[in-house]
Amino acid sequence: MSGIFHAGISGARGRMGRAVDQVLDERDDVMVAVRFDWGETPDLSLCDVVIDFSTAEASMALAELAAERGGPALVIGSTGFTAEQDARILKAAEKVAIVRSGNYSLGVNILIGLVEHAALRLDARDWDIEVIEAHHRLKVDAPSGTALMLGEAAANGRGHDLEEVRQKPYDGITGEREPGKIGFASIRGGGIVGEHTVLFASKDETLTLSHSAIDRSLFAKGAVAAAAWVRTRRPGLYDMQDVLGFRQA
Amino acid sequence: MSGIFHAGISGARGRMGRAVDQVLDERDDVMVAVRFDWGETPDLSLCDVVIDFSTAEASMALAELAAERGGPALVIGSTGFTAEQDARILKAAEKVAIVRSGNYSLGVNILIGLVEHAALRLDARDWDIEVIEAHHRLKVDAPSGTALMLGEAAANGRGHDLEEVRQKPYDGITGEREPGKIGFASIRGGGIVGEHTVLFASKDETLTLSHSAIDRSLFAKGAVAAAAWVRTRRPGLYDMQDVLGFRQA
Amino acid sequence: MSGIFHAGISGARGRMGRAVDQVLDERDDVMVAVRFDWGETPDLSLCDVVIDFSTAEASMALAELAAERGGPALVIGSTGFTAEQDARILKAAEKVAIVRSGNYSLGVNILIGLVEHAALRLDARDWDIEVIEAHHRLKVDAPSGTALMLGEAAANGRGHDLEEVRQKPYDGITGEREPGKIGFASIRGGGIVGEHTVLFASKDETLTLSHSAIDRSLFAKGAVAAAAWVRTRRPGLYDMQDVLGFRQA
Amino acid sequence: MSGIFHAGISGARGRMGRAVDQVLDERDDVMVAVRFDWGETPDLSLCDVVIDFSTAEASMALAELAAERGGPALVIGSTGFTAEQDARILKAAEKVAIVRSGNYSLGVNILIGLVEHAALRLDARDWDIEVIEAHHRLKVDAPSGTALMLGEAAANGRGHDLEEVRQKPYDGITGEREPGKIGFASIRGGGIVGEHTVLFASKDETLTLSHSAIDRSLFAKGAVAAAAWVRTRRPGLYDMQDVLGFRQA
Repeated sequence: MSGIFHAGISGARGRMGRAVDQVLDERDDVMVAVRFDWGETPDLSLCDVVIDFSTAEASMALAELAAERGGPALVIGSTGFTAEQDARILKAAEKVAIVRSGNYSLGVNILIGLVEHAALRLDARDWDIEVIEAHHRLKVDAPSGTALMLGEAAANGRGHDLEEVRQKPYDGITGEREPGKIGFASIRGGGIVGEHTVLFASKDETLTLSHSAIDRSLFAKGAVAAAAWVRTRRPGLYDMQDVLGFRQA
Repeated sequence: MSGIFHAGISGARGRMGRAVDQVLDERDDVMVAVRFDWGETPDLSLCDVVIDFSTAEASMALAELAAERGGPALVIGSTGFTAEQDARILKAAEKVAIVRSGNYSLGVNILIGLVEHAALRLDARDWDIEVIEAHHRLKVDAPSGTALMLGEAAANGRGHDLEEVRQKPYDGITGEREPGKIGFASIRGGGIVGEHTVLFASKDETLTLSHSAIDRSLFAKGAVAAAAWVRTRRPGLYDMQDVLGFRQA
Repeated sequence: MSGIFHAGISGARGRMGRAVDQVLDERDDVMVAVRFDWGETPDLSLCDVVIDFSTAEASMALAELAAERGGPALVIGSTGFTAEQDARILKAAEKVAIVRSGNYSLGVNILIGLVEHAALRLDARDWDIEVIEAHHRLKVDAPSGTALMLGEAAANGRGHDLEEVRQKPYDGITGEREPGKIGFASIRGGGIVGEHTVLFASKDETLTLSHSAIDRSLFAKGAVAAAAWVRTRRPGLYDMQDVLGFRQA
Repeated sequence: MSGIFHAGISGARGRMGRAVDQVLDERDDVMVAVRFDWGETPDLSLCDVVIDFSTAEASMALAELAAERGGPALVIGSTGFTAEQDARILKAAEKVAIVRSGNYSLGVNILIGLVEHAALRLDARDWDIEVIEAHHRLKVDAPSGTALMLGEAAANGRGHDLEEVRQKPYDGITGEREPGKIGFASIRGGGIVGEHTVLFASKDETLTLSHSAIDRSLFAKGAVAAAAWVRTRRPGLYDMQDVLGFRQA
């Protein structure tokens, strides 16, 4: 009846949990019902939806608990799931609505849709695709998970899996670029929040699709938007492309 | 029957006409049947399609001649049509298939589709849109026709006409930016072939969609691609969005 | 003797004053001796240097008080001075060392030096200069003060004052770009912290020098760096180009 | 007495030789006296200066011949010299004025000066440096020679040789970025003529210095500008930094 819903925060003491808390605090249509961390037993009956940035293990346990109870809906932002954990989450989603994504930024998820769209239309014999990402000096891996998501979207647009067409960074005597490959370049420096670019280059023109994060709070905001969306959905495993309506049933 | 088709070039002695001639020369599936300019009477019976970069008046006359004869199909790249000329072209298109566009670059036309897509999904209260274009020092008008096409696509994505939401360049004491407006910025210098960017900016992130022309021949190539597409179509007025399959029947 | 110095904060309750306070708090070599705002009478004898982001009037009064006393040194970040206030600050600087700047970012001030350098070497007949800036939607004037500083640096590199060569934004039928002019383009959207680009474009190549602010605290940090520099200088009016050693005595 | 000078073209039938020929043809102040290729014996007495884009071996032989004769001055654009060839060129330059560079673009050479300038002023503990370059799909090596020149300039500004601080491309689990290193990222696609960017990134801001080639003829134009400069110099080995006055005697 009421437009107001009740949210739980899992991983509440972590960096993302606190950011989610702050975002929820600024919205009029949601109240925080419970906050909990690994090892604590929350009263899930108080929640319409739980936003969870914890660990793969904690998220899987939470999903199975929610599935058993028939709710609440979940928004999962944890990463590093094993194939077995993936399968158990998928099973839980038969009983409860779950959104899961590696990046809750609205802009990045729009970008993923646009990249697939463009890759579908630009012939791989004429157009080379390169993914470029830049992050702060503290980032410990490359390319970023989001760069790989973008590369996957580009590969999918062309009817491939990324692993079939992924190009290692150019270094030394490389020979000419192989048609159909998707390249990756990573830049690291200072406090760069996060920038992702997908370049489509033909002989005569380039198309460049980019996202730049101004403020880290945007990831929390996207997760909260996903929570507002998922709380009234039927059981199933969704991602941000569903939340944004890029993927039709 | 055969995959080879016959093309005519209207405005054959102009800069674009010569560029089209060169592009046709490099393709195996097309032969140039006639070349003509304003004042000359071509034998249209030799052509499956005519590519026409001439003047508004010449293009309109050509369209009416083709309509009378029931062919050939046309690709029109002339600009500066009056409302009356527009109406007469539209009428001719009841009898013959015509593609008409202000920009035959494949990349720009992909970009137009992506911009409309993004504008549809990004709430105008949160996301500001700006169109930025850069061209060589000899360009005599601003913003470019293509920048206006991109602005129109962004406005359409939001259910508006561009004229309702177009923002004049910021200069002097402007006050805060008005939500929902679409801004334009023009840059002029040296030999820049042509660059167009559409910026979507929210409080926390930006999405940037850009096109850059490397070589002017790309516009001729796009017109030839349109010719290969239109020669087998039913009568009607099409644009590059149709050629590229961005718009479904 | 000691490497530690004592700083005062003028305009301490303002947005920049609080940012300066936070930056000083993080440094080991400086202690905050006094904090004051307009209308309060600080004990200047406690300070080696005062960092002042207040108003033109308050800054002028502070400069004259410091001049009378023979200290402390000042770092002034207020803006909007009248010609008469300018003259009185200059007079005060005969008795006390003052740094005054419209932008205390180290990066922007490096950029100013690089732009003058490049403008000096790139012939105005061949190279067009454009200054492009982007800021958040709340900014009320255009172009930004920093864009004008960059334009001034470019003009100076060519032996001109900016006012002689400043080009209004391109809009409508402009005709060809006039050689020697310096153009400005402003972009407004979302939460963009601040971006400045100076483009040098010739027929065959472009040189682009850009600055992007990631975090607003950088302006406070630059002012504190100026304070550490100026506290041991002889009387005179300095700017950030002096602090950075771009300008030799 | 006369402002007109006579130039020879070595490697006249190569791609760069022909481009030089075309540029010389467009200038009023120079006449082409001889054109020759490897194996031909030119009459050097007809030339004030020879522009040479041939091979390392041919260039070395030409330099030694010119040294023996006491002229003409040389502009050498060949690459791939061995250490021994380097030494013999240096020896020849005791008798004749020689300009030698890996990139004759005026813009790139301005950029090299600006990068060294900036690197000298931006503390390596706070500012990370990354060099990014993009080229067409046919380029067979990475990073580009010009990217390495820019990296060398950045390293020199910090008192290092590039080899001491060069960072391999980030790929996989890299750990945090090491302070003081200079990174390289290469992008390959379509017909991109050539783009080079040097990024300086601190925690709070970035400075980005970029060059973009619009037209390949710019390299020939730069070599001709070097020829006009070197023909009246005393013996010595110069590079484009000397031609542009970035380096004082």
